[in-house]
Amino acid sequence: MLDAVSAQEDLFVYACGDASQLAPLLGGRERIEIVDAPEVITNSEDPSEAFKAKKNSSLVRGMQLCRENRDISGFVSCGPTGAIFVSAVMLLGRIGRISPMLTVELTKPDGSSFCVVDCGANVDVRAEKLVDFARMGSAYMKAAGVAEPKIYLLSNGAEDKKGSASVKRANELLRAEMPGFMGNTEGHSVLSGDADVIVCDGFSGNILLKTIEGAAKAVISELRASGLDGEALDAVYRKYDYNTQGGAVLLGTGLPIVKGHGAATAETVRSIILTSYRLAKNGLNAKIAESFSMHNA
Amino acid sequence: MLDAVSAQEDLFVYACGDASQLAPLLGGRERIEIVDAPEVITNSEDPSEAFKAKKNSSLVRGMQLCRENRDISGFVSCGPTGAIFVSAVMLLGRIGRISPMLTVELTKPDGSSFCVVDCGANVDVRAEKLVDFARMGSAYMKAAGVAEPKIYLLSNGAEDKKGSASVKRANELLRAEMPGFMGNTEGHSVLSGDADVIVCDGFSGNILLKTIEGAAKAVISELRASGLDGEALDAVYRKYDYNTQGGAVLLGTGLPIVKGHGAATAETVRSIILTSYRLAKNGLNAKIAESFSMHNA
Repeated sequence: MLDAVSAQEDLFVYACGDASQLAPLLGGRERIEIVDAPEVITNSEDPSEAFKAKKNSSLVRGMQLCRENRDISGFVSCGPTGAIFVSAVMLLGRIGRISPMLTVELTKPDGSSFCVVDCGANVDVRAEKLVDFARMGSAYMKAAGVAEPKIYLLSNGAEDKKGSASVKRANELLRAEMPGFMGNTEGHSVLSGDADVIVCDGFSGNILLKTIEGAAKAVISELRASGLDGEALDAVYRKYDYNTQGGAVLLGTGLPIVKGHGAATAETVRSIILTSYRLAKNGLNAKIAESFSMHNA
Repeated sequence: MLDAVSAQEDLFVYACGDASQLAPLLGGRERIEIVDAPEVITNSEDPSEAFKAKKNSSLVRGMQLCRENRDISGFVSCGPTGAIFVSAVMLLGRIGRISPMLTVELTKPDGSSFCVVDCGANVDVRAEKLVDFARMGSAYMKAAGVAEPKIYLLSNGAEDKKGSASVKRANELLRAEMPGFMGNTEGHSVLSGDADVIVCDGFSGNILLKTIEGAAKAVISELRASGLDGEALDAVYRKYDYNTQGGAVLLGTGLPIVKGHGAATAETVRSIILTSYRLAKNGLNAKIAESFSMHNA
């Protein structure tokens, strides 16, 4: 957190948590204000129950602060996804009628990046929602500097007629109304193709992301076992180790929320704060609202 | 094909295809009989239409031969999956009321292997079908020599309550009635865990397989670009290049059918014939029927 605040001189952080633990680390630092919120929501709790019961958790207290203070332009957390989701919808509201969803941005071998929408927030999804995800993903990549994002629909074949019932219908809808829609793509083309946005339901997206991570690690462990070694292997391993990366972003609520892994390191926290800073600077939520032709973001 | 026939002295092959092309290559060879079937079914044709119209294609003629001659114990093809599927159901029948599905066997970094059921034949699948896939996958791994296959259900989280509606229901059914069922698994654990069978619908399974292939190739291309080189990289690349492997197996019809990729090489053909030989020797279809407690296989 200190590194992130040092890196951006117009960045101000409210650090929500147990003040008795935070004060020795962050007390008296410039552009950091400690907000005492000693309760903790764990992964094993029911998200809605936890939201109601633990108003003084860092998660709920922090979102409440965002609700009260409209100058706050981003929220980051390494807490449980379900509780973040519930708290964000309850306290920050949605953009229009969109179902909030998670995106993760990944780097391809050629150095360019793409986002996957949805990565796990919505598992049983109708075609219309997939179109919403496409819009949000496109807005996200525009905020990342891609002028005309290329959008692909993840399926079990590249042809338009391939896919589950909802994917086939989504293909039709996207063909009819989504600028930048290029068609279906398959698992083996995600890292090698020209996609800026991969559209899928949260179940498939979660499998896609975790499989990329698992396969990359498996290949590197095999190469190490066969005697290869060196910095190149370590670098590629880190690249596909999503715990060390910028985190998933919850889109579709009143503020974009950047979520780091529960087992996050100091580097993760630095990274998610700087991602949140960048998204706010680039006006992500205004771009999402615009892509839905709304003006109430 | 010649290599496969040489490798197993009790193997007899009916080579179906254009006799004028096959005769110069295979004519007069021991334990090979040419069956003239000059028509070709392509990937762009409607499978059912092609099945009806092209009785003299290698695919339909070959299946017809299997139907007429019960001594034939396996069928291999590099033709279109849809047409193979339709022809097999029409000419060889199903085992009981099972929906036929595709499995692919993959090797893990530790050298053990596992199968994925379904890899793409059934995209919108109810929970009960996922249980059928688990039974067929377990029978397949038993035929491959695994005494008590460990079965996992692919989901977006390891906890029982995670997943789409059909996956959550399948978890309950598998917990109640499937010996060897271990619970849910996620994309990053598929290659590193102890699974013998990964159960999923054909949409997710297709994404899983192709993503493993794509991610492995992406990692290796990055390592090559960073200056690494050598046989270890080539070996791992080949391992995850499913076109060079043993092929997908269609399970649930009167004979197990081994399908190689359309762009198959001589090595692929050798490999799929030997896989088919091994499955027949190990009594795969009897094991599938047994796992459903049927006796009409």
